[in-house]
Amino acid sequence: MKTYLDCFPCFMTQALRAARLTTTDETKIKAILDQVGCSIKDMPATATPAENGAKVYEIIRSITGVYDSYKQIKQNSIKEAKQMYSYLKNKILQSDNPLETAIRIAIAGNIIDFGVNIDFNLKQDVEKILFQDFAFFDFENFTNQINKAKTILYIGDNAGESVFDKLLIETINKKTIYAVREIPVINDSVMEDAINSDLDKVATLISSGSKAPGTLLNQCSNEFLEIFNSADIVISKGQGNYEGLSDADRSVFFLLKAKCYIIANHLNVPVGSIILKEHFLSKKYA
Amino acid sequence: MKTYLDCFPCFMTQALRAARLTTTDETKIKAILDQVGCSIKDMPATATPAENGAKVYEIIRSITGVYDSYKQIKQNSIKEAKQMYSYLKNKILQSDNPLETAIRIAIAGNIIDFGVNIDFNLKQDVEKILFQDFAFFDFENFTNQINKAKTILYIGDNAGESVFDKLLIETINKKTIYAVREIPVINDSVMEDAINSDLDKVATLISSGSKAPGTLLNQCSNEFLEIFNSADIVISKGQGNYEGLSDADRSVFFLLKAKCYIIANHLNVPVGSIILKEHFLSKKYA
Repeated sequence: MKTYLDCFPCFMTQALRAARLTTTDETKIKAILDQVGCSIKDMPATATPAENGAKVYEIIRSITGVYDSYKQIKQNSIKEAKQMYSYLKNKILQSDNPLETAIRIAIAGNIIDFGVNIDFNLKQDVEKILFQDFAFFDFENFTNQINKAKTILYIGDNAGESVFDKLLIETINKKTIYAVREIPVINDSVMEDAINSDLDKVATLISSGSKAPGTLLNQCSNEFLEIFNSADIVISKGQGNYEGLSDADRSVFFLLKAKCYIIANHLNVPVGSIILKEHFLSKKYA
Repeated sequence: MKTYLDCFPCFMTQALRAARLTTTDETKIKAILDQVGCSIKDMPATATPAENGAKVYEIIRSITGVYDSYKQIKQNSIKEAKQMYSYLKNKILQSDNPLETAIRIAIAGNIIDFGVNIDFNLKQDVEKILFQDFAFFDFENFTNQINKAKTILYIGDNAGESVFDKLLIETINKKTIYAVREIPVINDSVMEDAINSDLDKVATLISSGSKAPGTLLNQCSNEFLEIFNSADIVISKGQGNYEGLSDADRSVFFLLKAKCYIIANHLNVPVGSIILKEHFLSKKYA
């Protein structure tokens, strides 16, 4: 997926939001905005939003010296999500269709995204998504392939959401590799966040190698690419991973909530839609 | 009023909006965003948002060669406002307090502001503002000073709103000088728009000399400054003029709707508030 014109003002908004989390020094924040503004000319529209957006966080790191602006927020999100774990686990166990319920819960966790907005209510959103209609729901394909699969690559997105991913991984109950970002970017999960979410108890954890808020295959490690190419199923969570993998050369199941109108338009669904969509369907079954 | 950090991403959003009105060539629009982005480093936070924002429109003019991006929109806004003229004139004439009603209508016209957003419904907003509580309502001072005044300087804001300004000028019925921008910027009125709004029939029209979407006294013509300093009353419409004149060294009556949260915070009112506020009140009556 390319970077749309609307993404460029959004990068400035993200820069301001992340800069304010990192420092209260307004001169420093202005310096960040100056540099992000100037870097727009070096962001080609042909690159993915995740690739271009990564520059914002590089600039914040270099100007402030702060490696992980969202560290505290991520810890809080994981804590909040963990407090809901038992309640949601029961929801899944008591459900007529535990897999569907676990998918809905995993998508609900995708609301914890400080790249798009900071106004959300996790508990309310979970309850809503449990009953929301899907805009895409390739559930039959997903179930069939899950049943046959031996290895699953699950590409995580945000910290906190990671706890909800654990519930889906437990429900699927197959050998799973869970991939995180190489370095902190927005509130995306890195290794430490995955461990804090107890994902190491249900999956093998790896870094994708990507330093962007998404999965950019040209940045990924050989170890990750090998798993990406060989896994029976790839589950990709969230918008950033969708941006990087929407043109990937293999089947990918995208699980996300379409939170920004650019992603929603790209998927041809209304903003706020929930999605379980297999990419590559037509080629696969051609 | 200074430029707040939140204004910088907003300049990028404004740039994209105005660029799209001016050209459909995405390469040219990206070039505009590149240049506006790079110009942020040349926008000091100590300057007013109107002064910094003016650079956005200079860049659009220089890259596209289009002098007045909002020309068609301004003509449509004036046409739509004129269609409401008789209806609103009757509202004022039948009102128990024609001056207050005319003030409310003039403020309602301030919603026609393509710098802040493009989603408004003029007719609905007029009806709402006729009954909305004021966040500031220095009506007694305004009435007293109007009654004593011989000359009024009325600083216009947006095209279309200009037709509603005419209703207030007719209701006040004193010698009025109506000031417009020197060159087109966003959908602010220039001389041609004031004439199309029939303001020449009720006021002497002048250019303020300001090339920004507001009144920057350091850019204004000597002719305007002379009138600004000598007029018995200055009425300033809208956010842009407020940005430039909120620290002015004389009494100014601000009439506006606080549409963006930066202006609302500066006035210490909720977004959406309607305002009739005399600036310089404390010094004047000290």
